[in-house]
Amino acid sequence: MRNIKLIIEYDGTNFAGWQIQPHHRTVQGTIEESIFQLLNEKVTLIGASRTDSGAHALGQVANFKTNKKLKIESIKNGLNAFLPSEIFVHQIEEVPLDFHSRFSAKSRVYQYRILFHPSPLDQRYTAVITYPLDLRKIQSASKFLIGEHDFTSFSVAKIDTEGRKCKIFKLKWKKGQDELVLEIKANRFLQGMIRTIVGTMIEVGRGKIAANKVKKILKAKDRRSAGPTAPPQGLCLVKIEY
Amino acid sequence: MRNIKLIIEYDGTNFAGWQIQPHHRTVQGTIEESIFQLLNEKVTLIGASRTDSGAHALGQVANFKTNKKLKIESIKNGLNAFLPSEIFVHQIEEVPLDFHSRFSAKSRVYQYRILFHPSPLDQRYTAVITYPLDLRKIQSASKFLIGEHDFTSFSVAKIDTEGRKCKIFKLKWKKGQDELVLEIKANRFLQGMIRTIVGTMIEVGRGKIAANKVKKILKAKDRRSAGPTAPPQGLCLVKIEY
Repeated sequence: MRNIKLIIEYDGTNFAGWQIQPHHRTVQGTIEESIFQLLNEKVTLIGASRTDSGAHALGQVANFKTNKKLKIESIKNGLNAFLPSEIFVHQIEEVPLDFHSRFSAKSRVYQYRILFHPSPLDQRYTAVITYPLDLRKIQSASKFLIGEHDFTSFSVAKIDTEGRKCKIFKLKWKKGQDELVLEIKANRFLQGMIRTIVGTMIEVGRGKIAANKVKKILKAKDRRSAGPTAPPQGLCLVKIEY
Repeated sequence: MRNIKLIIEYDGTNFAGWQIQPHHRTVQGTIEESIFQLLNEKVTLIGASRTDSGAHALGQVANFKTNKKLKIESIKNGLNAFLPSEIFVHQIEEVPLDFHSRFSAKSRVYQYRILFHPSPLDQRYTAVITYPLDLRKIQSASKFLIGEHDFTSFSVAKIDTEGRKCKIFKLKWKKGQDELVLEIKANRFLQGMIRTIVGTMIEVGRGKIAANKVKKILKAKDRRSAGPTAPPQGLCLVKIEY
């Protein structure tokens, strides 16, 4: 038995997210199909992070097990030949059998891009906000989120077998010309968590939520206490660290 | 009579280029339709540069004349409301009646992006080349193109009422991580000229055309002497200078 690890880039615009679902075009489902076409074997592809419908990835990690003896480079080239142009396998390697993309991961790094004017060339990869945001307010509110907290207020998930605690290692806002980019790194994220953090910080930045209210939002453990969920296309999974 | 100047960004992926043509979806045609919806007036929109089918623009300039008295900001907002999300009018201003987007322009700046691996997130805006290119050869060949020359060998146009001479002010290759970007500025470009320059330079970079053969290609005044035409999606009109 071999364990194959992939590093994958994808444009999530026309996918119903990573995770396989019946009657939906998903990234996991599409790659599993390509593996079947190539190896004539039904495998389960484990993804490190279940990206949302419409969100993107530069460095998603996934692994699957196979008994087939095809050379590792031939698997890479074969998969890329079968995959649609929206998905590309950048790297492939054989890893120890106990490697698990999701459970072995130490941290996930995501990026969220906000643009302050509509842009045809960037619209697939940014959320557009046409009112001004006070970056200092956003930064002071963001500090309350760094570290280990129960993020129930920032998630839409009903049940989470692994609990609701996440440890945010880094949460940094970078101001560019006409754009604001969030870089966020944590041991794990709950479903919808980054987009709810972004949606809440936008409310803080426009003065609708006070920066220090974020502490109370965390304590409330109630999704209704936080701001709206920011749109998915601004979100991109940058890398997974092991 | 008023003369209205627009600065426009567009994603050209799903357009048959700038210039209006019957039975094709063009950028000029789409904007003229939106002007008609807004002002109930048939106008001719003059574009500074007739971008190719599939090529993009960050800063195309266009102008049209109207007798309507709508405020300039209302024209901008109204047009953006009618236009598809692939086109956005960034700036609008009233200019003297003798301003002509094309004839008044002093120079055009374009960019061409080559990527050395496939990338789902960049595929709409780059050409992918998976073999190595020798940048020094490309740079030494490029020097022969700078200045004023007859670019007949680099154009597919059969007739050109304004002649075939163009003056290239700048032709610079910038090496990034896994990408090569051409920045080119000239008083004007012939049809297909930049893409033929890129296609020829790729042949130089991979050793199929000698760098100093470019002088001969210019002299030949024959399209068949140059290299192939590079694909359109890597091309983007950056700005027009007056």
